Amino acid sequence: MINIAVLGYGTIGSGVIEVLKTNGDSIAKKAGKQINVKYILDRKEFPGDPIMEKLVKDFEIILNDPEVKIVVEVMGGVEPAYSYVKAALLNGKSVVTSNKELVAKHGAELLDIAKEKELNFLFEASVGGGIPIIRPLNQSLTADEIVEITGILNGTTNFILSKMSEEESDFDTVLKNAQDMGYAERNPAADIEGHDACRKIAILSSLAYGMQVDYEDIYTEGITHITDTDIKYARAMGARIKLFATSVRDNDEQVYAMVAPMMIKADHPLYIVNDVFNGIFVRGNVIGDVMFYGSGAGKLPTASAVVADVVDVAKHLSKNIWTIWSSKKLELKDISQVKHRFFIRVEGTADTSLKNKIKDLFGEVEEVTADGVDGEYAFLTSLIKEQDITKIRENLPGILNVIRVRF
Amino acid sequence: MINIAVLGYGTIGSGVIEVLKTNGDSIAKKAGKQINVKYILDRKEFPGDPIMEKLVKDFEIILNDPEVKIVVEVMGGVEPAYSYVKAALLNGKSVVTSNKELVAKHGAELLDIAKEKELNFLFEASVGGGIPIIRPLNQSLTADEIVEITGILNGTTNFILSKMSEEESDFDTVLKNAQDMGYAERNPAADIEGHDACRKIAILSSLAYGMQVDYEDIYTEGITHITDTDIKYARAMGARIKLFATSVRDNDEQVYAMVAPMMIKADHPLYIVNDVFNGIFVRGNVIGDVMFYGSGAGKLPTASAVVADVVDVAKHLSKNIWTIWSSKKLELKDISQVKHRFFIRVEGTADTSLKNKIKDLFGEVEEVTADGVDGEYAFLTSLIKEQDITKIRENLPGILNVIRVRF
Repeated sequence: MINIAVLGYGTIGSGVIEVLKTNGDSIAKKAGKQINVKYILDRKEFPGDPIMEKLVKDFEIILNDPEVKIVVEVMGGVEPAYSYVKAALLNGKSVVTSNKELVAKHGAELLDIAKEKELNFLFEASVGGGIPIIRPLNQSLTADEIVEITGILNGTTNFILSKMSEEESDFDTVLKNAQDMGYAERNPAADIEGHDACRKIAILSSLAYGMQVDYEDIYTEGITHITDTDIKYARAMGARIKLFATSVRDNDEQVYAMVAPMMIKADHPLYIVNDVFNGIFVRGNVIGDVMFYGSGAGKLPTASAVVADVVDVAKHLSKNIWTIWSSKKLELKDISQVKHRFFIRVEGTADTSLKNKIKDLFGEVEEVTADGVDGEYAFLTSLIKEQDITKIRENLPGILNVIRVRF
Repeated sequence: MINIAVLGYGTIGSGVIEVLKTNGDSIAKKAGKQINVKYILDRKEFPGDPIMEKLVKDFEIILNDPEVKIVVEVMGGVEPAYSYVKAALLNGKSVVTSNKELVAKHGAELLDIAKEKELNFLFEASVGGGIPIIRPLNQSLTADEIVEITGILNGTTNFILSKMSEEESDFDTVLKNAQDMGYAERNPAADIEGHDACRKIAILSSLAYGMQVDYEDIYTEGITHITDTDIKYARAMGARIKLFATSVRDNDEQVYAMVAPMMIKADHPLYIVNDVFNGIFVRGNVIGDVMFYGSGAGKLPTASAVVADVVDVAKHLSKNIWTIWSSKKLELKDISQVKHRFFIRVEGTADTSLKNKIKDLFGEVEEVTADGVDGEYAFLTSLIKEQDITKIRENLPGILNVIRVRF
């Protein structure tokens, strides 16, 4: 038997308890021992819930109990999670977490402590919910140099974009529905502004390239500027708009990273990732393209990933599972130097004067039309540097929207 | 530094050498040591190839060299691979293999020997080429009870079915083209009759349920009976035909397994797996649905998976990576008791007499028509037991084809 403590009895914490109860026997078989939840830390009370007898309010009780071998941190947020996790590791306890803020900010340091102490710090659930992606990156794609990792990593924004496309509704209406259905928070900024996806791609990029990618360095654009008109054009082109979180080792061997809406067509493996699902596309220099798909959030899928990490720790109690994530900072390529194709809409009628102006600014473009849209002119550019688009935006009045294109 | 020996210098063997050369530095970093190929075993000569100095023709040299810690078996076929691998394990060497026949037949025994000797026997490349699926099943989905695992596991048949659909060509024409392009063997039986996919789903099922699933027990149907007319109907329904290799824990808790063409629609995650790509869909009782996608064959993707296993062994030299695959046989549910929907085509015109006969046999059916097809009547049944279809086939003359349906 091995004793664990769960920090936080919210959605994921209660999911962990439920998964351990539902599949206890098979989990014990795979871990080689019974997993026993000795403590649950939460400030709140849960009258009538059988976990009450395990509930503690003081982390010191857990920290100082030598019987606790694994601490499961599912509280979220950087503090006090960071202090608790660090103290646990320094006190000889392995840690499993689902906390993307914690991992993005302090992953390298916590992995170092775990390695030094011959313990483990695992965080499969911090990205992609239930989808196995951290372990495959660390242990399955080790023969490859990763040249691209691109994910649809935020279920809320993917749900909103999917519904805007299916129902031809505008952003605000769909967001409100998503909030009513519990798929979006009352304060949705972290999702719709791309911050959540940004932390997740920072974690994946740090693992893929083995060095610290600071999330503050990642160019991040949310989906709030995507309108139903953009969706109409996308449909007319057989394309979909997805919030991509991506990092790419460019031709010059430099890595750039960004979070931004992207138009893709059916030939892209992430095209089928709809609704609240997540998908992660990885390109290696020998394996080629692989893609991982599944529930990127939700109580039980996320808890499944947390418990799988607990099983892995139980099997590696005195052996560190080596993860290469140096605290040395990876200097990202200046995003202004990265090239993309762009979909651009400008006000006005498609007369010779406007077309000539566009041609002067962008060279040859590909015109795009959509049923029921008029009073504007839309087109696809060739590959253009981000800095050129920035410059043009400043000089061309009447730009309605600019969306990057991957086809 | 760690010394390895590669058995077989064919497509995958030479891919392994190439991957180790291309990514040697990053692989050494991830393995914690340099990987050195000390021997390559092959009967043939390779004049002018720098590997000649490592070439040996006698396995005993490898077996008796205590410096060789890992044997990489990429010869294929059960013998002599089985004798070599067993001898290597018994002699204290870990083994990595890409050999699906060997793993399907002797996986449980070889894993037992590895465990007993504190060694490792890894076989990620035996299913799905470069796609990480064995390690995710063993180490990432451990919190779940697997209720379904369904793969498009054979690139050749998927290529043929994709091309038949895209080009509206018949089976023989596409097969011939696939052979000319090197995507199908001159003797294509193992692929098109489903035997290759059968061995692979036997391996995945054994791991998913932790008990021996004998491939001889799996109902296996190939794609040779799929015609361009079937494809026309599929397109008319917005469906595609895929060769599914599947095992399902049915409502009665019994597991059934089968390899057979299946009609699926766009709502199935495997719908987008086209051409030579493979995809594996897994449903767990807590994680929900996950899907893994990538190159299911090919020199470098397969070699990538082999080398990743070598890295894992190098990191676990004196520690067995525990895999639950008991040699105890899993008794599969009798396939005749399994229920499916069926797409059925019969000769004749859709007059009242034929329709009444169909209704007598199948109850209410859903008629299907396709442009340019006449002289026959096609329909979808409700859920029907396999044994009922078998009986009806015997009594209804003029059946042109029967294909299972997953929608």
